[in-house]
Amino acid sequence: MNDEKKEKVISRRSLLKKAALGSAVIAGAGIASLGSQPKAEAAGISGELAEVAKKRHLSPNELLSAAKTYEPDGVHDPYLCLTSGGQSGQIMVYGVPSMRLIKVIGVFTPEPWQGYGFDDSAKILAEGNIRGKSITYGDTHHPGFSETKGDYDGEYVFINDKSNARVAVIDIRDFSTKQIVTNPILKSTHGGTSVTPNTEYIIVNAQYAAPFDDKYHDAKNQEVYDKIFRGAMTFWKFDRKKGRIDKDNSYSVELPPYMQDINDAGKLVSDGWGFCNSFNTERYTGGIESGNPPFEAGCSANDTDFMHMINWRKGEEAIKAGDYKVINGHRVISMKAAVARGMLYLVPVMKSPHGITVSPDGRYLLASGKLDTHVSVFDFKKIQHLMNRKIYDGYDPYGIPILSMRRSLHGLVETGLGPLHNQFDVAGSNIAYNSLFVDSAIVKYDYMKLKVLDKIPIHYNVGHLAAVHGDTVNPRGDYLISLNKLAIDRFNEVGPLHPQNHELIDISDPLHRKMRMLYAMPFPIGEPHYAQIIDANLIKKRAWKVYPLGTDTNTMTRSPFRTLAGHEKTVTNGNHVEVFGTSIRSHFNPEHIYCKVGDKVTIHITNLERAEDETHGFGIYYYNKSVSLEPGKTATIEFIADKEGVFPYYCLEFCSALHLEMFGYLMVKPA
Amino acid sequence: MNDEKKEKVISRRSLLKKAALGSAVIAGAGIASLGSQPKAEAAGISGELAEVAKKRHLSPNELLSAAKTYEPDGVHDPYLCLTSGGQSGQIMVYGVPSMRLIKVIGVFTPEPWQGYGFDDSAKILAEGNIRGKSITYGDTHHPGFSETKGDYDGEYVFINDKSNARVAVIDIRDFSTKQIVTNPILKSTHGGTSVTPNTEYIIVNAQYAAPFDDKYHDAKNQEVYDKIFRGAMTFWKFDRKKGRIDKDNSYSVELPPYMQDINDAGKLVSDGWGFCNSFNTERYTGGIESGNPPFEAGCSANDTDFMHMINWRKGEEAIKAGDYKVINGHRVISMKAAVARGMLYLVPVMKSPHGITVSPDGRYLLASGKLDTHVSVFDFKKIQHLMNRKIYDGYDPYGIPILSMRRSLHGLVETGLGPLHNQFDVAGSNIAYNSLFVDSAIVKYDYMKLKVLDKIPIHYNVGHLAAVHGDTVNPRGDYLISLNKLAIDRFNEVGPLHPQNHELIDISDPLHRKMRMLYAMPFPIGEPHYAQIIDANLIKKRAWKVYPLGTDTNTMTRSPFRTLAGHEKTVTNGNHVEVFGTSIRSHFNPEHIYCKVGDKVTIHITNLERAEDETHGFGIYYYNKSVSLEPGKTATIEFIADKEGVFPYYCLEFCSALHLEMFGYLMVKPA
Repeated sequence: MNDEKKEKVISRRSLLKKAALGSAVIAGAGIASLGSQPKAEAAGISGELAEVAKKRHLSPNELLSAAKTYEPDGVHDPYLCLTSGGQSGQIMVYGVPSMRLIKVIGVFTPEPWQGYGFDDSAKILAEGNIRGKSITYGDTHHPGFSETKGDYDGEYVFINDKSNARVAVIDIRDFSTKQIVTNPILKSTHGGTSVTPNTEYIIVNAQYAAPFDDKYHDAKNQEVYDKIFRGAMTFWKFDRKKGRIDKDNSYSVELPPYMQDINDAGKLVSDGWGFCNSFNTERYTGGIESGNPPFEAGCSANDTDFMHMINWRKGEEAIKAGDYKVINGHRVISMKAAVARGMLYLVPVMKSPHGITVSPDGRYLLASGKLDTHVSVFDFKKIQHLMNRKIYDGYDPYGIPILSMRRSLHGLVETGLGPLHNQFDVAGSNIAYNSLFVDSAIVKYDYMKLKVLDKIPIHYNVGHLAAVHGDTVNPRGDYLISLNKLAIDRFNEVGPLHPQNHELIDISDPLHRKMRMLYAMPFPIGEPHYAQIIDANLIKKRAWKVYPLGTDTNTMTRSPFRTLAGHEKTVTNGNHVEVFGTSIRSHFNPEHIYCKVGDKVTIHITNLERAEDETHGFGIYYYNKSVSLEPGKTATIEFIADKEGVFPYYCLEFCSALHLEMFGYLMVKPA
Repeated sequence: MNDEKKEKVISRRSLLKKAALGSAVIAGAGIASLGSQPKAEAAGISGELAEVAKKRHLSPNELLSAAKTYEPDGVHDPYLCLTSGGQSGQIMVYGVPSMRLIKVIGVFTPEPWQGYGFDDSAKILAEGNIRGKSITYGDTHHPGFSETKGDYDGEYVFINDKSNARVAVIDIRDFSTKQIVTNPILKSTHGGTSVTPNTEYIIVNAQYAAPFDDKYHDAKNQEVYDKIFRGAMTFWKFDRKKGRIDKDNSYSVELPPYMQDINDAGKLVSDGWGFCNSFNTERYTGGIESGNPPFEAGCSANDTDFMHMINWRKGEEAIKAGDYKVINGHRVISMKAAVARGMLYLVPVMKSPHGITVSPDGRYLLASGKLDTHVSVFDFKKIQHLMNRKIYDGYDPYGIPILSMRRSLHGLVETGLGPLHNQFDVAGSNIAYNSLFVDSAIVKYDYMKLKVLDKIPIHYNVGHLAAVHGDTVNPRGDYLISLNKLAIDRFNEVGPLHPQNHELIDISDPLHRKMRMLYAMPFPIGEPHYAQIIDANLIKKRAWKVYPLGTDTNTMTRSPFRTLAGHEKTVTNGNHVEVFGTSIRSHFNPEHIYCKVGDKVTIHITNLERAEDETHGFGIYYYNKSVSLEPGKTATIEFIADKEGVFPYYCLEFCSALHLEMFGYLMVKPA
């Protein structure tokens, strides 16, 4: 921690101390008094502002929220929230505190505005094919920024697809997806992506236990289920230099057929470990259609499920020692080997825990049993003590040592009904926030003193919550976002499919110790699961304004098809018509392309523009190609001219007053 | 007009009158004084609000904007802006004045969150196939609400796809796309959709001239171009009872190979007419690749291009009389027949006009030459006079009568550089707004007095603009949105592809007569072209909260596959496995589905929930199916089980605390 940060932490600490002493006094003043909604005049507001407030029925408290969230034209937000888009398959980025959506990143779903999947970026989507099948959506769950020394560095983002057990890599230089990897052994992945402190690995793990192979096995048969169905934690090795996952140097650790859930990477004192929770340690096999209780009942029978703790540094040793099996070309460390190497442990957690979050100092692991009312605060030092001395409560049916819950816990905090996830306030404050799905509330608590400090209602039914750098070694405080699953009556009617609701909460003032609701943001593209909020300066440093002229944006290197002004040409070689074209305000070169039915047509276009935001686009009738040509980009489309006719193409972006005049014709002659 | 509305218009009129007299006095007070940004205290702001303003560097003017746009949690916006999404292929809806995105409607591009294109809604997308090819994006341009008596009725929305010459129908009951029709003769459509006053027709017209047939023709050959290439205006008949376009009762009118542009439907005195502008009346055939000037130069050579005026009631008569040709199964009235029937006229408009907008009373047609500095205000009564007396300035090369521009004009207003589009303030005010692409400004002017009243800079480069009901017989005033094409430096850095920028302008106070910038909204999903802003109460009346139990949402009728609780079953019939399933918090029934490789698997799911917003989803590994199950919906997915294995399926929406436990397994045995 540098001095400036240290100072900030210390100053917040002393503020908190003061607050603890004087909270009753403070609560009676300031924001709290506005909360009781006196007349605007009494709150020091008069003139036209008071008139507007009156006309729009804004309380002084609401006016304050308006002032705390409004960004004037041209003003940038201090933070960016990067959120998964759920089954939209995408990632969304919005500014904080303005809550203005500023970017949608095509990840697992083709997106024609970006040309994603409609030009040569289709090959990135094709990396995500499973058993040869093209998959055109994902269920994105947990975005994870790349980290340096346990804090976001703003270079890359990773995200998993729950539906299809895949992970994608997004480069922040251009906010574009560069790689998709499929998991060779899993059939769904919920947990992850969490990132180890220096982005050595991207950790994901299974959700629904399934066979590692691609054969038929009966999920309803208990014996088959116990023997064949498995979970796993996969450690995807990240090659930062290449900006790509290194599949050959990745590996998985076999896990029992419990439904492993969200994970987190250890840091500082817990560095080297990956943690996840689980449900269905009952190994219930369901069957409502045969008169059995449904999964939801059978998976919730036990009082405790298991947190899993896996040491990836020891995993590396196992791999080095050849202590693994190869399944579908992927290295898998068996449970037996993992146990033998002292790299796999379980500890019970109260009823169906959903999350696990590691404190900024790496020592405390927060978990909430969603059918419980507590946050369990585990102390990794206690856990290490038990591990080192091999003090076990026993073994699970797969021979994995189980640590004592009681002896692993620092303690429990009773937060409310349906506790799910946790995020942290500034390091040293010992303050965390817990989301309550059933209560529809956020709870602020001291996880050292095991004491609830504040509770605020949200609308409605929160899943994850996100604080600024809230899962790093250096959380920044200031804002918390509640990712609510239901909106119900909050926004205008738009038919039976409602948006989600992201609510922005002010946590900037530790003195008042009160959370304060600032803003409700409808979220109408998918169901976001998790988000990370990053200091916008980190993004600003990394993001490109324009591409170097002639960039292949899939590789971020100079394209071999880069074409400069005056060098445009069309080369016909047998049945292959290859166009080396350009775009600039406001024409394409060429404006006519001739070929015949059956020809392969390849069109490379370099956008010669150097001015920021002077994007062109290339759209064409019938051939289903849409290209976004940001300044400097060289893109390629390729298709078989399978139909005779005249096919207009044109610029898709309103680039100049003569934008409409930017067009041409592809003419396909009979064969 | 009812009495209440009349009163409103009259009262606004008298306010305007007063304003005209006293504008100098008023301009010196109120908002204008805040615009000079004095200290907060001087503006009547003190206390915590003043502190926040100081800390966040908000001027009193900006605070006022915050107060004018902020919607507290749970408060609905009075207006909804429905905007095209450009080449994203979708429609977006956001609240006004909060500028919060509240809905994305899948139209021409599959969208997995909505299940659009991933369940049986795929058949709607398939209606948009062209020559057998599946097209998975569109370039949406101009949304048009259905109208009753010339005003939006909030029942349906129509939108065109420029790239592929298609039109979609969206039902506001559930904000979902119900129909896509392909244009049988056109290869691109820019203009439209505009809607006739009682939604008799949805009007679209060609953009890039092309042959009506699907044969090869050389676009570069002038003789071929003049003879074979054509534009058209298509009148899609709307069957409101069925909520579908009636293709069999639709028709087109052949037009010369000028690039027809945005259209508008006549109303009141001009009812029965469709209007559009055009560029490239030069019939330039381009060829920069051969050393010719590019299209942008050749298409901009003439001082004037043509507004086209077409009478669709006379078109109906022509169709009734059999005076048409059938091309690709579609009825086309030839230019010759249209001229003979007195239903097709041209009038010159200054340099490359882009838009045409009909005044609330139907009498004035506003057009802006984008390479000119004026808005041309045409008087339809003068035009009618010339038409009725057959007073022509001559004929174009295709024999279409040309009216005198001078004698058709009410007058010209000099607004600035790059004028594009127009919208109207409340009826009777005679106030319109003009967007200036090159100047990056919006101009407020009196189109009767031909006088500019105000000008406001925008950031940057506006295309369309939208006012509340701004193209109807009854514009509501209050707000104007500037749909800016470039954002450049306005928002946080997100790489080379920038969002668009929609700026909200306050036009609510005719007394002050000053437009006032309120809010900048980044728009990161496509490039919106046009938008309509509608009274939210109209939507509220129409939108459904939940579906009647067992609704086929493609047809909005009861599904034959509706399954009630306790009636779930799986029926195997030879190679067909058909599941009649249900979903309810928090399980599917069944939880196990068995089949063998090669089987056709059909899964019907009825969401039994009756509570608003209790949406479930159905996602499955590998088979690329994503279903959104809003309360009451019955959806179907169907696929060939082409691979052996175990395929988990699960609920895609976080529906309850036991959401993760809502899953099952499809098990595919070897054949």
